[in-house]
Amino acid sequence: MKIDVILLPKETAALDLSHSVCIVLDIFRATSTIVTALANGCKTITPALSTEDAETLASQMGSVLFAGERQSIKIDGYDFGNSPFEFSKEKVAGKAIVMTTTNGTIAIKAAEKAYRTFIGSFINAKAVCMQAKQYGKDLVIVCAGTDGLFSLEDTLCAGLLVQLLKTDCEVTLTDSALGAFLLYAQAKNMLVETAVQSRNGRRLYDLRRMDDVEYCLSADLFTIVPQYTEGKIVIENR
Amino acid sequence: MKIDVILLPKETAALDLSHSVCIVLDIFRATSTIVTALANGCKTITPALSTEDAETLASQMGSVLFAGERQSIKIDGYDFGNSPFEFSKEKVAGKAIVMTTTNGTIAIKAAEKAYRTFIGSFINAKAVCMQAKQYGKDLVIVCAGTDGLFSLEDTLCAGLLVQLLKTDCEVTLTDSALGAFLLYAQAKNMLVETAVQSRNGRRLYDLRRMDDVEYCLSADLFTIVPQYTEGKIVIENR
Repeated sequence: MKIDVILLPKETAALDLSHSVCIVLDIFRATSTIVTALANGCKTITPALSTEDAETLASQMGSVLFAGERQSIKIDGYDFGNSPFEFSKEKVAGKAIVMTTTNGTIAIKAAEKAYRTFIGSFINAKAVCMQAKQYGKDLVIVCAGTDGLFSLEDTLCAGLLVQLLKTDCEVTLTDSALGAFLLYAQAKNMLVETAVQSRNGRRLYDLRRMDDVEYCLSADLFTIVPQYTEGKIVIENR
Repeated sequence: MKIDVILLPKETAALDLSHSVCIVLDIFRATSTIVTALANGCKTITPALSTEDAETLASQMGSVLFAGERQSIKIDGYDFGNSPFEFSKEKVAGKAIVMTTTNGTIAIKAAEKAYRTFIGSFINAKAVCMQAKQYGKDLVIVCAGTDGLFSLEDTLCAGLLVQLLKTDCEVTLTDSALGAFLLYAQAKNMLVETAVQSRNGRRLYDLRRMDDVEYCLSADLFTIVPQYTEGKIVIENR
């Protein structure tokens, strides 16, 4: 089994992912928030690339709630921003949500041609690895990055996933997968202190959202595995 | 001073480098070989993007030698491949060389619009850092990558340079610079064992060029700093 880590979603354009299982990561905060919302009973999350796209999708869906941010700030008039703490059981159970975020939704769309596309994060790390490797396909971990640039926190999580995936499997690692693995090994005992030095980490610190930073770096809070299929994210293993 | 690490040369297309000092790295093996050749008395190295380009440049230059490889193998009819051991004093002293390599020359060209463009490697790491930081400009370390993909050995060297540059300066690190720094910190005590697991490392191992691998990972063999200026690489501080 080969494991690759894509450091920026635009790199997927050159790849044929149809025989690969993808895990998409946007740690601060889209994929952490998606896992939380679905764990709290949300029925479906439909990713949209823009607010216009979100409007169009919602008009075809009946009753929906809107979630989204730009540069970590909630979009005006939306029901939710992008903090996982907003997506409580009370607010999301049984609901359909349309979501547009700066980087995460772009990364999910970039991986949509994969054999399977799963939503990963620190908070469902073990579960998503267990699910992803059962197909016996090559694995591609897609980091959302930040505004088209390399993102430290996504690559740290990719490194954790590589560590978990290689534990009891014979695997071949690409240079980026080996790099992510080594990066995580160096930082794992000071994860919060390291990730808060990233661009997104500093932004969340400045917005006084250290609660989000710490939550999004907590491993294995949930065992659910969201899957993106036919335009929607649903729980694969509920 | 800001330090950025570009993981792939094509990322430079979106950047205005005119106020930045660039250090280009292609550890296996172009920039390691360029440093070696110039240290051994070679007068100039002219990078060319293709063999056709190399012919054209040579025809304008008078007496030149040709160096170049594709997929680590010497180009047919050329005077040199891309192993630093080929570029001995006896063969290169006083000579002009035209060089085309798979990744290195692309990376050098990608950085040509910088305020200054220096050629870096493990073998001149301290010297290139000393030279690069004296302008007080932002620093951009450009990794050549391998066939358009992330390369482990280039990023390891970028991490060493970040470590050297931040030692006695107040610096701001981008996510990729911090990532490279952490990666190098994890691998520095097992550099050969780590780098030989990279794609290029495995290729050189298969070609029985472990001498190249070990040489290219040896820090500070030289104190020269090659600069790319007006289409040619010459020694800045001879």
